[in-house]
Amino acid sequence: MVTWFGRRPQRTEAPRLSARGVLQPTEKVDISSLAPGVRHFLGQAAYRELGEFESLARAVATAPNLAVKEGLSTAAGRALSKHHGLITEIRRRGHEPATEMAPFVVALDEFRRETSGADWHELLLSCYLGGGLLDDFFIRLSDGLPRDIGPRVLQLLGEDSGTGVLVHELQTAIENDVALGSRLAMWGRRLVGDTLLVARSAMPAADPAEGAEARIEPVFTELIAAHTRRMDGLGLTA
Amino acid sequence: MVTWFGRRPQRTEAPRLSARGVLQPTEKVDISSLAPGVRHFLGQAAYRELGEFESLARAVATAPNLAVKEGLSTAAGRALSKHHGLITEIRRRGHEPATEMAPFVVALDEFRRETSGADWHELLLSCYLGGGLLDDFFIRLSDGLPRDIGPRVLQLLGEDSGTGVLVHELQTAIENDVALGSRLAMWGRRLVGDTLLVARSAMPAADPAEGAEARIEPVFTELIAAHTRRMDGLGLTA
Repeated sequence: MVTWFGRRPQRTEAPRLSARGVLQPTEKVDISSLAPGVRHFLGQAAYRELGEFESLARAVATAPNLAVKEGLSTAAGRALSKHHGLITEIRRRGHEPATEMAPFVVALDEFRRETSGADWHELLLSCYLGGGLLDDFFIRLSDGLPRDIGPRVLQLLGEDSGTGVLVHELQTAIENDVALGSRLAMWGRRLVGDTLLVARSAMPAADPAEGAEARIEPVFTELIAAHTRRMDGLGLTA
Repeated sequence: MVTWFGRRPQRTEAPRLSARGVLQPTEKVDISSLAPGVRHFLGQAAYRELGEFESLARAVATAPNLAVKEGLSTAAGRALSKHHGLITEIRRRGHEPATEMAPFVVALDEFRRETSGADWHELLLSCYLGGGLLDDFFIRLSDGLPRDIGPRVLQLLGEDSGTGVLVHELQTAIENDVALGSRLAMWGRRLVGDTLLVARSAMPAADPAEGAEARIEPVFTELIAAHTRRMDGLGLTA
């Protein structure tokens, strides 16, 4: 459990995992009042997807064999296609993509540097876990977008990310190498902190007087629960 | 003029450039009898496009600003989409993409290493000139594919490569920096040799007795003429 405001909330209603491991939120958290403006959202999400594409393209370039390279190229193409979809939305609103993405370059580049990993498997885990968490998060935030754009963005971000190949490669490697498994488990635990900071930066500063903190906290709890399920699915202890 | 068989042909009917610089071949060269089998073609062309994608993705990652990064990401997406289109054709014929591409990995990886360039501008020039020449070549070769696939491949490879941004960046850089211009001119001249060797490897060994040499030579002359026009368009002397 990570707390984002320097102290733990008095009470936390943690989401409960059902027998099938599916998230059952105790209540639907209304995030819409916490969502950033459309321009902020589109610029940040667009640059985020471009970064995911760049990381996956690096994984393609350094893949150990052709079949994996081929599978990863599909995942890279999906991230790129989400990026281009968001760019289309930016242009549709009459804005210049480069201008809209510019405010997010320093922080997101730094995030990618910090989470690029020491080797190919760490890079893969970063793409899968970081990408998964941020996709979840931006999908969640898109609830707060205006109706003339929210549903299109939701559909775009919800499209299959093609990450099955990442899961397969990671699972296989972890099964066959205990030492790698424990190193990746540590890496996964570290990733969640860095990634949540990026997510936090997508939301306006919390104003305790308005109870923003209490509304944001459960969203992060949900994101962490989904992250934990992804770790579990790989055979890693979160 | 490059000769590929150790001696110059007795007579060369060189293509002539019209006033508008458009290639006017003196005769339509029948390449179909020289084309490789479908499997060879698809495997090689698919891995070639994957390599073009990887090079463009590297150019995206190292782009000097966001607007250029954005433009290059489109070009990278186009190469990836051609790659995936060829992969679809391989699967449609019941073959495994990794198996079909495998025979071409060593030579094409070596080609990409040799032509990756010393800096971002050289990389861009390699993507534009090498990619352009090989696209031309595979489009030309696709004439020799069976009718149930040739036209689809022709359309796929003929789609806009999104390289306008490469041309713009190179033109601007060359106009503003004479030293860079002469370095890139040398690089462009070197690229044509390496690239034509890749093209040559896509064709069966020439059998002088059957006049293959005489039929291949004009194809290469056309490719070189188109390369020269691309160099001219950038303000480089070929």
